Amino acid sequence: MPSQKTVQDYIRTIPDFPHAGILFRDVTTLFQDARGFRLAVDQLLAPFVGEKIDMVAGLEARGFILGGAVAHQLSKGFVPIRKKGKLPARTIEQDYELEYGRATVEIHDDALEPGQKVLLVDDLLATGGTAEAGIRLIERLGAEVVGCTFVVDLPDLGGRKRLEAMGVPVHALCTYAGL
Amino acid sequence: MPSQKTVQDYIRTIPDFPHAGILFRDVTTLFQDARGFRLAVDQLLAPFVGEKIDMVAGLEARGFILGGAVAHQLSKGFVPIRKKGKLPARTIEQDYELEYGRATVEIHDDALEPGQKVLLVDDLLATGGTAEAGIRLIERLGAEVVGCTFVVDLPDLGGRKRLEAMGVPVHALCTYAGL
Repeated sequence: MPSQKTVQDYIRTIPDFPHAGILFRDVTTLFQDARGFRLAVDQLLAPFVGEKIDMVAGLEARGFILGGAVAHQLSKGFVPIRKKGKLPARTIEQDYELEYGRATVEIHDDALEPGQKVLLVDDLLATGGTAEAGIRLIERLGAEVVGCTFVVDLPDLGGRKRLEAMGVPVHALCTYAGL
Repeated sequence: MPSQKTVQDYIRTIPDFPHAGILFRDVTTLFQDARGFRLAVDQLLAPFVGEKIDMVAGLEARGFILGGAVAHQLSKGFVPIRKKGKLPARTIEQDYELEYGRATVEIHDDALEPGQKVLLVDDLLATGGTAEAGIRLIERLGAEVVGCTFVVDLPDLGGRKRLEAMGVPVHALCTYAGL
């Protein structure tokens, strides 16, 4: 009988990573299972089937694994949004707040053309700080975010509300209460 | 008429990144082109068509983009090999030499099963230090590297000879003389 496991069934929880008290949702066990990985890619795209998507963007680093597969499934290109200093050509950058301090992400300034429709992919939606910065970078290049799609949503951290307040549709495959 | 561009035609060269005197081969312009990205994935796999591959492994971070797409094309799982401290569960680690100093990569110790056949993917083969460390991690878990596949080979840096001396088949889509 074919497996009935859901995407969530493939995800394991690691206590106290990266800090004491954090329950880390580990998607590597999803990615390393052939059926799980394909199921995740299919489900990440399910709400967007039939929509016009010109490009897939992914957030460093786990968003690269998913984003590469999603772009391949759509037969579209992939644009990386990276931590500061990693992209070799001319970039624009966007700051965002962390729990302690700030961080910066970048995109090549010629990565997107005005009017292009972009799907943003990452593994996890927590506070939404990185995703918000990614959306701003895409929009500053004149492109449009047709949606953000995540494997895991931690709704108590407020990321979904934050991105939806920007007018961006948010999709996630599973949710966990708490941190 | 369909485009006749080769994979190499999509790669641009950025002088003096990350250091003065380096000609950086930027594959983001390949990834962001729908045809270029698919062409690269197809060609990365071409020599391995018909071979048994159980799992795709990728080196952080650009190898994640390609590796996710390659795993998706093969309908196989994907295993990340990451810089030290990024993987949440129990790992094994492998040091390797850099131009100045040393670095460490890790793999989850339950990421592979003994006997599994693994294709290792990355964007660039230079000295081969990271790829060699990745091969050793895969082999220490009892799995077998059926090949390493790269977009760019810089043969003057010796990586291909180094990996072939380990008995691992090496494939690359284009080569650049010099650094």
